[in-house]
Amino acid sequence: MRILSGIQPSGALHLGNYFGMMKPAIELQSQGEAYYFIADYHSMTSLFDPEARRRYTLEVALDFLACGLDPRRAVFFRQSDVPEVCELTWLLGTVTPMGLLERCHSYKDKIAKGISPNFGLFAYPVLMAADILIYDSNLVPVGQDQKQHVEVTRDIAAKFNDTYGPTFVIPEPLIRAEVAKVPGIDGEKMSKSYGNTIEIFGDENVLRKKIMSIKMDSRTPEEPKPDADRNLAIQLMKLVAPPEEAQRYEERLRAGGLGYAELKRALFGFYWEYFAPARKKRAELAANLDYVEQVLREGAARARAKAREVLDRARRACGLS
Amino acid sequence: MRILSGIQPSGALHLGNYFGMMKPAIELQSQGEAYYFIADYHSMTSLFDPEARRRYTLEVALDFLACGLDPRRAVFFRQSDVPEVCELTWLLGTVTPMGLLERCHSYKDKIAKGISPNFGLFAYPVLMAADILIYDSNLVPVGQDQKQHVEVTRDIAAKFNDTYGPTFVIPEPLIRAEVAKVPGIDGEKMSKSYGNTIEIFGDENVLRKKIMSIKMDSRTPEEPKPDADRNLAIQLMKLVAPPEEAQRYEERLRAGGLGYAELKRALFGFYWEYFAPARKKRAELAANLDYVEQVLREGAARARAKAREVLDRARRACGLS
Repeated sequence: MRILSGIQPSGALHLGNYFGMMKPAIELQSQGEAYYFIADYHSMTSLFDPEARRRYTLEVALDFLACGLDPRRAVFFRQSDVPEVCELTWLLGTVTPMGLLERCHSYKDKIAKGISPNFGLFAYPVLMAADILIYDSNLVPVGQDQKQHVEVTRDIAAKFNDTYGPTFVIPEPLIRAEVAKVPGIDGEKMSKSYGNTIEIFGDENVLRKKIMSIKMDSRTPEEPKPDADRNLAIQLMKLVAPPEEAQRYEERLRAGGLGYAELKRALFGFYWEYFAPARKKRAELAANLDYVEQVLREGAARARAKAREVLDRARRACGLS
Repeated sequence: MRILSGIQPSGALHLGNYFGMMKPAIELQSQGEAYYFIADYHSMTSLFDPEARRRYTLEVALDFLACGLDPRRAVFFRQSDVPEVCELTWLLGTVTPMGLLERCHSYKDKIAKGISPNFGLFAYPVLMAADILIYDSNLVPVGQDQKQHVEVTRDIAAKFNDTYGPTFVIPEPLIRAEVAKVPGIDGEKMSKSYGNTIEIFGDENVLRKKIMSIKMDSRTPEEPKPDADRNLAIQLMKLVAPPEEAQRYEERLRAGGLGYAELKRALFGFYWEYFAPARKKRAELAANLDYVEQVLREGAARARAKAREVLDRARRACGLS
């Protein structure tokens, strides 16, 4: 079974990314043949700074390797190291009805937000279909909001198979359960676009300050807090602390007598501890970029061999050379 | 100076294609470094028969070589042998405003004709831009109806250069003068879609019958015909006969006394003579398909080296590895 995950190179990793996407994705590497690609072609639809693209691509590679992606087990590569995917995009596009793309939420949402649309944004689901189909992927883990893209991929694959004969494996979406709703420091969903993130890696003092600025209310330490489970620090603590520890803090908060500053200092401690191994690993990797580059290159070679096989199958089917 | 021409593999070559596009295109091979590609990727937007695509691609290669394309002088190749063009299509698409494509006549016309639009038809001008830009083309000979696509290419190139720094050569259109208005056997413009064509290559009896069926009026041979220059056989004769011969027939027709059957027999004679060398050459080529394949492969290797250079320049500019 082949499992495919795309990763946007979009800047510093935060708790929301980590628990929402990265951790579940990495866990899948033991479930089958996992392919992870850093979606640098996709990033071109909204990021127009070449230096940032290079930096983010490297950063996300470091993040994933630091957080446990095992390159001996999974295939880890940069999307643009397998340009075959662009050729397949053309082939698929010629059997893709315009209406299918016009109905895509992600495009409609971006237009609704007033983003001046480029053709790449519109074409995005076709490239995504090529990303998935070119590896004969069986399973594509996605959030609920991305489910439509897998459905579009299935439609395009079926259309190509109908037109030119059986060519592509029809993939299944694996909808990620919303296990970890990760709140930001203001209580909204943690997201870079809200400016409320807590990063995983970075300067200790900066990160401590962020955690100490998590929004609390004005009740005194002594007051009992029957709604302790809705406290942001408690919610975050449940992600990074041993369960019995988080439980203990929640009970202390509920009973009254625990100050917010002490709570947040404790949260910082658990958080810092939780990511200590990843932090150490990341520092080692950052000091050995040749190794990281080699991992990505070897991943690309493996991915490319599979891509070549599927692309050749598609080319033969539609009568190219 | 590099000159680029794309050739649709769309079936049997006829007089309209020959005088309208092929002859002027081939003449350009002495004006600079001419690149001719057989547009098999493009054909996918409207031709869904893999066998027909293979056959048409081979046929058009035979036609061009038979009619004088010199592969030592020009670079002659199949579009899909240079898949780099698909990667550049993605790169260009991410700086292409949707509005630019929505305004393209060729897409609007197809929709107006009730053709159910696929994404490939919509994306066509972006692939065409990549075709042109990937060879640093300076000059693109086009009919008046294709001028807009070169303008779109210029816009996209300028947008990419603005966004990521100087990368692409901005091409110029070379508008083909409508020297040869080629009427079909019914008097309409000769076009496959009107079913009024006279092919260049094929069975002698079939072709003679086509020429003998050119539409005439019901005037008797004896009547003088002051409008002799508007006679279809005379118009076609001017393309394929020595000028003084065509002149002589036109005068005889004008004066009265020349029957239409004799006129058309004469036309057939000139036509058959005109294409005799090409017919001979084509038969030789058809008996030596290995050579044709080798020509296309060598052309692709030359084209690909240039494409690689320009694509790498574009990748560096936009921050892909």
